Amino acid sequence: MAGQVAGPEIERLVQLLARVPGLGPRSARRAVLHLIGKREELLTPLAAAMAVARDTILTCRTCGNIDTTDPCSICSDPERDSRTLVVVETVADLWALERAGALKARYHVLGGVLSPLDGVGPDDLNLAALTERTAAEGIAEVILAVNATVDGQTTAHYIIDLLSHTAVRITRLAHGVPVGGELDYLDEGTLTAAVRQRTSF
Amino acid sequence: MAGQVAGPEIERLVQLLARVPGLGPRSARRAVLHLIGKREELLTPLAAAMAVARDTILTCRTCGNIDTTDPCSICSDPERDSRTLVVVETVADLWALERAGALKARYHVLGGVLSPLDGVGPDDLNLAALTERTAAEGIAEVILAVNATVDGQTTAHYIIDLLSHTAVRITRLAHGVPVGGELDYLDEGTLTAAVRQRTSF
Repeated sequence: MAGQVAGPEIERLVQLLARVPGLGPRSARRAVLHLIGKREELLTPLAAAMAVARDTILTCRTCGNIDTTDPCSICSDPERDSRTLVVVETVADLWALERAGALKARYHVLGGVLSPLDGVGPDDLNLAALTERTAAEGIAEVILAVNATVDGQTTAHYIIDLLSHTAVRITRLAHGVPVGGELDYLDEGTLTAAVRQRTSF
Repeated sequence: MAGQVAGPEIERLVQLLARVPGLGPRSARRAVLHLIGKREELLTPLAAAMAVARDTILTCRTCGNIDTTDPCSICSDPERDSRTLVVVETVADLWALERAGALKARYHVLGGVLSPLDGVGPDDLNLAALTERTAAEGIAEVILAVNATVDGQTTAHYIIDLLSHTAVRITRLAHGVPVGGELDYLDEGTLTAAVRQRTSF
């Protein structure tokens, strides 16, 4: 196809870019043309940044975050509350909570959720380390910040069972109306939760 | 923001990827996590392919196509009809026609369309070279394969004026019902053109 058009170098770049989430074959082709049109401003620094990422990014063996150091900057931050552990599914969720700046705790990245249909069992997740950490680090509270999906809630219940023999307090994020959200667009489950967990002014 | 979360190396990659068409800040962040999770299968070859593209891709000085050679493989292909020139707006349009395999001619990439509102005038496009080529290469037919937009049609009429003193035959792509298209979803202009230019079975 396009391999005959523009040479294997371009076609290879298109095929690799098409595997990046958010891009498909057509948008990858458009992206490549844009990159080649902006060789100095974009293509050159992007190639360099990817090479740097490839060579320097590590997965933190303590929490599963990614950083250029192991332990990561969050795990080695002495300012953080070391007795609260926030359990998240992915590094993206960790970043989202950090952007919100809602709390200065430490994290534990599961690397996914239990999903029998997709063949993801407890051994595929970072769960053994969670039990170990909770005991070894003297964790007082585990906040289950997993997604409000069926698989997320299944995983939450599995973790509750896992830690049930310990004295650790287990909490979850509140359900309710998103800030800025319009009631008319919310599902019944969210509205019911928001009414049940209403708070006083 | 996230720069505090995961180090400047990751944040720089996110910022550069967010400038790729089709990706935004949020999807760039997701893409970076995916790339780092697939370091060997995707990040490493992508960084290499970008470096290769940066170092080897040239713009053909004859037609404006991009390739690893100048003149490009299309311009230097002796099998192609050297008396027909297909005028396109962008390299993406050239690739689209090549994928269709509709004709074995040569191309002339304008690099855009005339757009007074965006400040794009004749001098900003590859137009002088078009007049020169038409004379120097003994072109018999110029096919105006510009987009069926207002700016595209303005550009087509400009080129028709430009070549009006020559004997070259100027044609344009047919308007009509797209193959596989449903009449009910087509605009009136397309349907009117399809009726006017109807052909016998």
